[in-house]
Amino acid sequence: MTEKVTAAITAVGGYVPEYRLTNKELETMVETNDEWIRTRTGIEERRIQKGEGLALSDMIVPAVLELCKKRGMEPSEIDCLIVGTITGDYPFPSTANVVCDKIGAKNAWGFDLAAACSGFLYGLTTGAALIESGRYKKIVVVGADKMSSIIDYTDRNTCIIFGDGGGAVLLEPNFDGFGVLDSVLKSDGSGRKYLKTEAGGSLLPTSLETVQKKQHFVYQEGAAVYKYAVKGMADAVHELMERNHLTADDIAWLVPHQANIRIIESTAHRANIPMDKVMVNINKYGNTTAGTLPLCLWDYESKLKKGDLIILAAFGGGFTWGATLVRW
Amino acid sequence: MTEKVTAAITAVGGYVPEYRLTNKELETMVETNDEWIRTRTGIEERRIQKGEGLALSDMIVPAVLELCKKRGMEPSEIDCLIVGTITGDYPFPSTANVVCDKIGAKNAWGFDLAAACSGFLYGLTTGAALIESGRYKKIVVVGADKMSSIIDYTDRNTCIIFGDGGGAVLLEPNFDGFGVLDSVLKSDGSGRKYLKTEAGGSLLPTSLETVQKKQHFVYQEGAAVYKYAVKGMADAVHELMERNHLTADDIAWLVPHQANIRIIESTAHRANIPMDKVMVNINKYGNTTAGTLPLCLWDYESKLKKGDLIILAAFGGGFTWGATLVRW
Repeated sequence: MTEKVTAAITAVGGYVPEYRLTNKELETMVETNDEWIRTRTGIEERRIQKGEGLALSDMIVPAVLELCKKRGMEPSEIDCLIVGTITGDYPFPSTANVVCDKIGAKNAWGFDLAAACSGFLYGLTTGAALIESGRYKKIVVVGADKMSSIIDYTDRNTCIIFGDGGGAVLLEPNFDGFGVLDSVLKSDGSGRKYLKTEAGGSLLPTSLETVQKKQHFVYQEGAAVYKYAVKGMADAVHELMERNHLTADDIAWLVPHQANIRIIESTAHRANIPMDKVMVNINKYGNTTAGTLPLCLWDYESKLKKGDLIILAAFGGGFTWGATLVRW
Repeated sequence: MTEKVTAAITAVGGYVPEYRLTNKELETMVETNDEWIRTRTGIEERRIQKGEGLALSDMIVPAVLELCKKRGMEPSEIDCLIVGTITGDYPFPSTANVVCDKIGAKNAWGFDLAAACSGFLYGLTTGAALIESGRYKKIVVVGADKMSSIIDYTDRNTCIIFGDGGGAVLLEPNFDGFGVLDSVLKSDGSGRKYLKTEAGGSLLPTSLETVQKKQHFVYQEGAAVYKYAVKGMADAVHELMERNHLTADDIAWLVPHQANIRIIESTAHRANIPMDKVMVNINKYGNTTAGTLPLCLWDYESKLKKGDLIILAAFGGGFTWGATLVRW
């Protein structure tokens, strides 16, 4: 159809740990209840990575191996692996390097991309550009987080929301117009006061005091984030559809970040996309930060048809947000 | 000359904090001496960011503002800002978001790219791809680190080496063959045992115990890293020159990561590039991790002539390494 090279999504992999942290169990940990959590967030349970010596890379490895198996390729064929995350194994080196070592992706370079809940969305455009530039042929874009490593399980504002997990997609050159077509990506760092981890960076390095003050956990002002999230995601989706001359009828699926069912419903409503065309799995996994979008693609893969136009949308810490149009 | 779009470097900015930590002062802190440090590392002093409430973003802001001023553009014209670093202000949000907020780059998205000492090198190819893809017109690639935030100043193996600082380049589309031409980028995550920050990630989350055990500081086995660094940088430079049919005479400048003067000399020697064509400022700044390459470009900018072929090379935590060919 076209001479222009695009970055097609040619395989998907995903992983969530086995342990299910249910609302019932949370009732025994903090002052909350199942009914409140369900109606306010849409979450029924979230997965938690339990076990000594396990970290983010141990969730990404099976996801990328699944992707390679589906595509019938060896990890050594990967040119570059990008990990969207804020909960890497180490402050350095990057989890991308650890994953490549563990799976034998010995010809890949790679890096971690920090953009909080928009990590996968930003990574998708970044990976697509590496394909479109003609520089690389096989790029793996991961979105994954082990949120349980930075959650205070005595803080009912955050511990009911977040979970562990993630997924990955393979991007390859395509000359028939499939893949990552267009993106509207935004940021507003003034939002950092509402959603952040205060300590452990160069502004407030780790110390006994920062640990005692619990400054290494996620801090979130839910109400403020909610307001910005609905507007941010809806505006980005609107701008993306308008400049690509698309109506809601043209869209097969909306793939929204899974932070809160009400944010998802409001975004869909404002884009005129009915809920039966919106991917939702927040009930099963909660908010896995950079993991939500690839976990949606992984869960809904069998329902996606070649040629479907889908819009991925995210909003999160930064603030970072945006929407990306993909022809499946 | 060519129809192909390349990403030209159209402006450079840099910043180092005022405070100079000299070898003499280090003699009062750990068991070391000026002569030993000079002959083994080439370092005479390094800059340290002192002052309450200052973080990485406060070093990047002046570098990016300088770049904008040189180019005669407003920060609002920036499309995307990539920060190569391992010492961001916060675990999240990203320092890219903070910088964009502080300078008024209100139309930019951006992210932090974690690849340790190769953060700027990896960011340069990533930023170039975003230009080459036709998606964006003005990409700022930053390399900067506040290493003093993760250095144990009682550990003489590391505290003599690292410093604070960084720089930035602007990438813009070019149709005359200038800019980021080719890259050889590699990684080997098995090197993580030699160079890392043990705690603070999802493998070993921050706790009173990890602070007491000093596991939030840089750990380095210098001898092992040295051996891999020389081989890694030299091999990458060799591969890059060979596949671009270049001899040492074609190269105006080698821009090596500034970790150790002996690694720099060995790399130059193995590439047959004489030391008068090698950028060196390790004496002034020490190892600023992702900051070294843009700080070299910033310091040597007046000596660079339009059309010069330069090779940037880096090696560091991951391991990550590589070499990139740029026509200035």
